[in-house]
Amino acid sequence: MHTTSRILDGIFPPIPTPFDSNDELALKPLARNIAWWTRRGVRGIVVLGSNGESAHLSDAERADVVAAARHALSDDQPLIAGTGAMTTRHTIALTATAAAAGADAVLVLPPFYYRAQMTDRALVTHFRAVADASPVPVVLYNMPRCTGIDLSIDAVSTLAEHENVWGIKDSGGNLAKMASIHAATPSSFRILAGSAGFLLPALTVGATGGIVALANLAPAECVALVRHVLDGKLDAARSLQLALAPLNTAVTSEWGVPALKASLDLLGLYGGPVRPPLLPVEASVRETLRRLLVQAGLQTPEERIL
Amino acid sequence: MHTTSRILDGIFPPIPTPFDSNDELALKPLARNIAWWTRRGVRGIVVLGSNGESAHLSDAERADVVAAARHALSDDQPLIAGTGAMTTRHTIALTATAAAAGADAVLVLPPFYYRAQMTDRALVTHFRAVADASPVPVVLYNMPRCTGIDLSIDAVSTLAEHENVWGIKDSGGNLAKMASIHAATPSSFRILAGSAGFLLPALTVGATGGIVALANLAPAECVALVRHVLDGKLDAARSLQLALAPLNTAVTSEWGVPALKASLDLLGLYGGPVRPPLLPVEASVRETLRRLLVQAGLQTPEERIL
Amino acid sequence: MHTTSRILDGIFPPIPTPFDSNDELALKPLARNIAWWTRRGVRGIVVLGSNGESAHLSDAERADVVAAARHALSDDQPLIAGTGAMTTRHTIALTATAAAAGADAVLVLPPFYYRAQMTDRALVTHFRAVADASPVPVVLYNMPRCTGIDLSIDAVSTLAEHENVWGIKDSGGNLAKMASIHAATPSSFRILAGSAGFLLPALTVGATGGIVALANLAPAECVALVRHVLDGKLDAARSLQLALAPLNTAVTSEWGVPALKASLDLLGLYGGPVRPPLLPVEASVRETLRRLLVQAGLQTPEERIL
Amino acid sequence: MHTTSRILDGIFPPIPTPFDSNDELALKPLARNIAWWTRRGVRGIVVLGSNGESAHLSDAERADVVAAARHALSDDQPLIAGTGAMTTRHTIALTATAAAAGADAVLVLPPFYYRAQMTDRALVTHFRAVADASPVPVVLYNMPRCTGIDLSIDAVSTLAEHENVWGIKDSGGNLAKMASIHAATPSSFRILAGSAGFLLPALTVGATGGIVALANLAPAECVALVRHVLDGKLDAARSLQLALAPLNTAVTSEWGVPALKASLDLLGLYGGPVRPPLLPVEASVRETLRRLLVQAGLQTPEERIL
Repeated sequence: MHTTSRILDGIFPPIPTPFDSNDELALKPLARNIAWWTRRGVRGIVVLGSNGESAHLSDAERADVVAAARHALSDDQPLIAGTGAMTTRHTIALTATAAAAGADAVLVLPPFYYRAQMTDRALVTHFRAVADASPVPVVLYNMPRCTGIDLSIDAVSTLAEHENVWGIKDSGGNLAKMASIHAATPSSFRILAGSAGFLLPALTVGATGGIVALANLAPAECVALVRHVLDGKLDAARSLQLALAPLNTAVTSEWGVPALKASLDLLGLYGGPVRPPLLPVEASVRETLRRLLVQAGLQTPEERIL
Repeated sequence: MHTTSRILDGIFPPIPTPFDSNDELALKPLARNIAWWTRRGVRGIVVLGSNGESAHLSDAERADVVAAARHALSDDQPLIAGTGAMTTRHTIALTATAAAAGADAVLVLPPFYYRAQMTDRALVTHFRAVADASPVPVVLYNMPRCTGIDLSIDAVSTLAEHENVWGIKDSGGNLAKMASIHAATPSSFRILAGSAGFLLPALTVGATGGIVALANLAPAECVALVRHVLDGKLDAARSLQLALAPLNTAVTSEWGVPALKASLDLLGLYGGPVRPPLLPVEASVRETLRRLLVQAGLQTPEERIL
Repeated sequence: MHTTSRILDGIFPPIPTPFDSNDELALKPLARNIAWWTRRGVRGIVVLGSNGESAHLSDAERADVVAAARHALSDDQPLIAGTGAMTTRHTIALTATAAAAGADAVLVLPPFYYRAQMTDRALVTHFRAVADASPVPVVLYNMPRCTGIDLSIDAVSTLAEHENVWGIKDSGGNLAKMASIHAATPSSFRILAGSAGFLLPALTVGATGGIVALANLAPAECVALVRHVLDGKLDAARSLQLALAPLNTAVTSEWGVPALKASLDLLGLYGGPVRPPLLPVEASVRETLRRLLVQAGLQTPEERIL
Repeated sequence: MHTTSRILDGIFPPIPTPFDSNDELALKPLARNIAWWTRRGVRGIVVLGSNGESAHLSDAERADVVAAARHALSDDQPLIAGTGAMTTRHTIALTATAAAAGADAVLVLPPFYYRAQMTDRALVTHFRAVADASPVPVVLYNMPRCTGIDLSIDAVSTLAEHENVWGIKDSGGNLAKMASIHAATPSSFRILAGSAGFLLPALTVGATGGIVALANLAPAECVALVRHVLDGKLDAARSLQLALAPLNTAVTSEWGVPALKASLDLLGLYGGPVRPPLLPVEASVRETLRRLLVQAGLQTPEERIL
């Protein structure tokens, strides 16, 4: 039944959740942002991932975000929603809500508070229960930097046998492991790069796309990179990969979501505030981001005026 | 204004949250458990800590647990409730609810999903906002094993200046750091050992008590250990410390909450199921626990019959 | 003066050091092994790396290994020798000896015992002193798994300005970092993949070759992979990368040098014993290796007979 | 046969190895330093530990240091020499040399370059071979911060059965583990605290002394702390422990050996240069050390003049 897992191929920006200055959801600007991304060729949208501050939202807010994103997308544009939570029952409940609100697939982070007890057996049991219950396909979400858990090749290949587990977003960046996962799973199982820092490398070991923060800022470039690989234009792909590296580092491992939102603001899109305890980037970081956006060839509004 | 931070001195079991076989809260057995613990001399009770599967509960369930525990305690028995959450606003909301439901103090885990961004500045800003808003005193909760964040001496000593921050539960087990925290904070600031594995060591570098999982199983022994130290009976304290070490390891770093609940069951108290994705201990572990309980001098019901 | 750093391009097997059953150097079989590798197109040979048990050898043994390898190679086949040691003076001394014994370049691991003190400033000072003193070009050796030190992009790019620092072997596997190093260093600075687990990915972000353990077992395949990338045949390169992944994991992160030596024995080359405290692989691992060699299309002698 | 393991009880400073301004051994000042320490009641001396820059010395230098220290001590003052090396044969050779040069016991760090392969089985095999061959008793040396290996309770308790393995210096600082080691080993097996940061805590869970860097600067205070514990004067011991904490942190985890040597210089003893790649402390750190020495009640020469 993996016949349509190809809907996961290509580039999906994991979009930030917009807040207003009162720390409340600000869903109005979402439609304009989404239109900007989809016009640039992304395959679909991911809401409620790490860049979406999913951990910062109430259940009701999560449902609102999914509904607003669905509303802003056309029917043929896939919407993936993050629904991982700390218990199996909460994950199943969030999954059902997200599917009802229009998500085409769910991206499921493992529970991680009791990481010492999260053996392969516990994780496989958990994800199977979620996949059994989910009305939509499940994408595993491996994010060791935030969770302290690195899903094993064994666990992933076991779960890949479940007809409702369609793929994995791997943000770990271990390319040897990614190759081994590809070797150990059916061809219908999709591997998606979790960071543009290794988008091209991932595509060379079996990934068919990426859910990458940088696609919020450089969607056309990320889409072009995938296209170049499909066309066998390795040199062109390499040039893009290297040109985007410094900006990518800045908005991921270095300064994270606050830098991603500040960069969106600099591009004339809606970034807006982060939710505390996250702090906004300092002025000096903002200037660095402005410089990196220019270096990456991404025009800021001021430049467009000139 | 730290005049009454002494209510934190002594032993507090961080109690497990009881569930029934349908994975729902089972608050009825709580009163009997609490009576058993308080009869054995513990200073008070902690609910909704790591051993309380706080991460596994909805906001409504958390409020119910606080209320049930308050109901089971007398007015002079302090109740501390865990209220740490992933955002500042959620932590403040849970704190207000817990205080309204009868908590005398709150135990606040730092937000940790975006741990790379949790600089001292971010953490101090967060905890100050919580302490400003909280109607009851705040106890910092340092739990690196689960959160991946180890609160710095600087952050703790800065926060100790806030009149509503009364102490820290430190589960990190770095005794040199604990001594340095003691040296860097006012004498009214309370340091509580976060594991019985280093209860006596902690008492020798300035701690005045402990919030320790083992106190659920061996409350009288933990209380006696503190008493021995106050009485200068180091040899007696050491004997207890060493006798309890193997059982403590089993129900903390080795098998965690599932082992703690299984041990309560073995003692004739209510342990009950854990909430998935946690798995119950296997039969062989249960036998090991039974043996460790006996070795630690804690009678199981079968023995009491004999 | 980086005009000839191209001698580092291509595949270099980091060869194991052969011992006899008395735990003494066994240099005789080295020539036959080296002839086998060079006939299969490798660019040159690395001795005294991590796979060469450099940490296990006396200074005199190290000199003997360099001399024996030099003797087995023709003049146009570059020989690189590992010379990193725990002090600056020892590293300089080993470097001088290796150069005198015929090494064309040295591969220099950072000192790592006092890793907490190995700031960028300390490391840059150290490597500059080594590069100043070395009669041959220096290749930095980043091996976080063994040393606990991950050379920073800043340190590497600073050192790349030294005319006698020609490149880096990076075994860390962080491809985003590798891309950033490429972006931050002159085009003459060579980046060499440190594991076949990410050989193709590395080549797509600027690496021009690899010093990879797997090249001891599959030299022709590793050489072909690089050739395919140069020829723009990405699909062919990907097939090789994926086909070699399981064997590579087995002889690197999973079972290490003992598995590499056992695999050489299985191929009819000289692997021989490891030096204690390393233990030989168990019989079951040996059978797994045999199976992985066959799966990777590498004929063992028994098969050749058939 | 552990009848004389009591010679390990008490305080042993792990002394720095003195170098001159040409980076050569400077053994002359050693005798004066050693006389200063022994007059203050230390049980004996440890040479060639982590504070002795053992990793920075040639085999010949190591032998010279042992001989010089032996010469400066009386016969009833135990001398312990570090002899851990990267192979079993090298460790055995260094052990034989140290014993011949007058060491009464050896302190043996595990081999750690191939830490991924250093299973309990490999480590037990290694240490047994060393203990079998050693003419003097062996003390295990657990130093996770430098080696990346944390000896397991199982490995230690297995090795404690060997009649020539008399104890362990544990620098890991995990007090729960230390208690478990005490519980799992014969009463003749000695546990020595590896840092003054947890000297008192360690003494409360079974340690009988310490090999602690701080004893180089505050030997009388460390000796007094142990005495207070033996006398049951917990409050006096606690006061010392807390008073020494900040200085201890500075010369261990914060700035390490360079700070220890600078502090010796400030006390009027011979500290001298560190061997590169270690760098001398900066001037500002030196001023901090001066202040910490005064705060800890340790007179510097200038004060003595006043």
